Amino acid sequence: MDARDSAPATASGVGDFTGRKVLITGGLGFIGSNLAIRLVEQGADVLLVDSLIPDYGGNLFNIEPIKGRVRVNIADVRDISGMNYLVRGQDYLFNLAGQVSHIDSMNDPYTDLEINCRAQLSILEACRHNNPGIKVVFASTRQVYGAPTYLPVDENHLLRPVDVNGINKMAGEWYHILYDHVYGIRAVSLRLTNTYGPRLLMKHNRQGFVAWFIRQAMDNQEIQIFGDGQQVRDMNYVDDVVDALLLAAAWDGANGGIFNLGNSPPVSLLQFVERLIQVCREHGMSEARYRLMPFPPEKKRIDIGHYYADYQKIRTVLGWEPKVPLEEGLRRTVQYYLQYRNHYWSPT
Amino acid sequence: MDARDSAPATASGVGDFTGRKVLITGGLGFIGSNLAIRLVEQGADVLLVDSLIPDYGGNLFNIEPIKGRVRVNIADVRDISGMNYLVRGQDYLFNLAGQVSHIDSMNDPYTDLEINCRAQLSILEACRHNNPGIKVVFASTRQVYGAPTYLPVDENHLLRPVDVNGINKMAGEWYHILYDHVYGIRAVSLRLTNTYGPRLLMKHNRQGFVAWFIRQAMDNQEIQIFGDGQQVRDMNYVDDVVDALLLAAAWDGANGGIFNLGNSPPVSLLQFVERLIQVCREHGMSEARYRLMPFPPEKKRIDIGHYYADYQKIRTVLGWEPKVPLEEGLRRTVQYYLQYRNHYWSPT
Repeated sequence: MDARDSAPATASGVGDFTGRKVLITGGLGFIGSNLAIRLVEQGADVLLVDSLIPDYGGNLFNIEPIKGRVRVNIADVRDISGMNYLVRGQDYLFNLAGQVSHIDSMNDPYTDLEINCRAQLSILEACRHNNPGIKVVFASTRQVYGAPTYLPVDENHLLRPVDVNGINKMAGEWYHILYDHVYGIRAVSLRLTNTYGPRLLMKHNRQGFVAWFIRQAMDNQEIQIFGDGQQVRDMNYVDDVVDALLLAAAWDGANGGIFNLGNSPPVSLLQFVERLIQVCREHGMSEARYRLMPFPPEKKRIDIGHYYADYQKIRTVLGWEPKVPLEEGLRRTVQYYLQYRNHYWSPT
Repeated sequence: MDARDSAPATASGVGDFTGRKVLITGGLGFIGSNLAIRLVEQGADVLLVDSLIPDYGGNLFNIEPIKGRVRVNIADVRDISGMNYLVRGQDYLFNLAGQVSHIDSMNDPYTDLEINCRAQLSILEACRHNNPGIKVVFASTRQVYGAPTYLPVDENHLLRPVDVNGINKMAGEWYHILYDHVYGIRAVSLRLTNTYGPRLLMKHNRQGFVAWFIRQAMDNQEIQIFGDGQQVRDMNYVDDVVDALLLAAAWDGANGGIFNLGNSPPVSLLQFVERLIQVCREHGMSEARYRLMPFPPEKKRIDIGHYYADYQKIRTVLGWEPKVPLEEGLRRTVQYYLQYRNHYWSPT
């Protein structure tokens, strides 16, 4: 045990992962690639596993800044033999691979089950049998809470998921906690809220509203907000989420724990869209605009109403705090896609 | 909608299921067979589905009293095509099939996942596509709560399962609630506590302590209690559980709901064993005795300490109340196995 194991690192303690061997599942995806870039900058020895399933978030262009400095292994986390091999010798596993579309999980519950439940079990079994000393950080989701019964939602809120994805992510999270408690596979679960930033999947609108709004605004299309736009959310810029992942990995005091991410103040969808449009206009996209639309029934059925998290626990235990204000995060995001749009979507 | 749908039936309202078509998964098992006997007595048209997996609870002798008055279809709930066919035309589905051994779920998490998650999804999909008007009652378990943080445990207690079985049953339960909310497949989940009575599996000791203690006592063997025997539990006699299942099926006011079963006062394992030994001695088994033993590590890791439920919700909403006192339940159980022991285990 060294200093890294006995006190929270700070997110700026960039030397912590030097020379450390790090495996990231979903490593070509939105959050995985942003995490990989940070880790490579810190001198970590990073291995990315991704299946590049066409409609999922994986995109080889995401790791352009670290091309040649990171190893990429195209594999599916459902492949037990592959995972048995790939976890060996790793110090850290950031377990970010997942099916993340709520709508897809309702249309094809079995695929969601295979990825978000069965593969999580087999990843943990791979660690247990091949590398029990590994430290695992799991990306869970606010979706496990379902429709909040009080706000802000802390970790003591009941889990009442409203879609198949939320149910399966709940099980996947608890496998991690179980393997920590029973087998000593050190694991932490972070319940992510809406995350945005460069490298977000923009190909389709089935992974949440954020990407789709940004794409519509940047395409000078009318953004369609379902309902009255007053639904409240908390939004994290991806760099802040990367901070949280690194802190959770670095400090063993978090092991076996579950932590909400979040941000304050929360914003309504309308406020989010208005700031997005303002940022787009600053960058010359003068036609960005929005309209309120009735909720389509299949989305309304799994809508959760207002949500924002109480993230006092991670603030206290790990010293995490989101740092990037919404306007600044949106600015960086829009600038990224202005430069690299053609790697993310075709102009409409 | 008839009277049955608008007010709680009473458990003694035995005419409610006359002529009704009822499917029971796990129908040759402990609770399924006791339920089937009651339903056949009430004139229901009962179809039992069971896979008769050797180490599970299914036993053809369990339905000896209704032989020829019930249809039996040997099938596995993991068989999607089979379930698609079998749910058709049924008024009620009592969904009791499951892998129930906590220890087995740790040794083979994938089989537990297939039965307690994937098959539950496919049963619900079968209902959705082939018989959306069916009413489903799901047998959940107190195991979803894990180690209680307060007692008695009500339905607002966090779910923090401590074994793979508890995690997968949690997901299986929430699929039912989800399909009720989103697709209108009327479903109720009952969280069963320790259930005992005639037809309990007695072949091995991997489905909980109750059966094993009864078998050891009836074999004049020394009962081994792990720990100090002070762990508290609530125990339901199977007839009381059958009452609850029927009430949940009969009243649509329970739809989409989750209800604890329970009993009061709770008893310690030591008290349970002492009463069991007393009942055995009344029936001539004079050598029944017990000994306290240290907890084996693999059991200790998934032990939940004290547990007893607050069952006020089902009492209020459905008028359910356990009626059979422990001594009386044990007496009926011991008498059953005295008569039919050879159908349940071979003398040691």
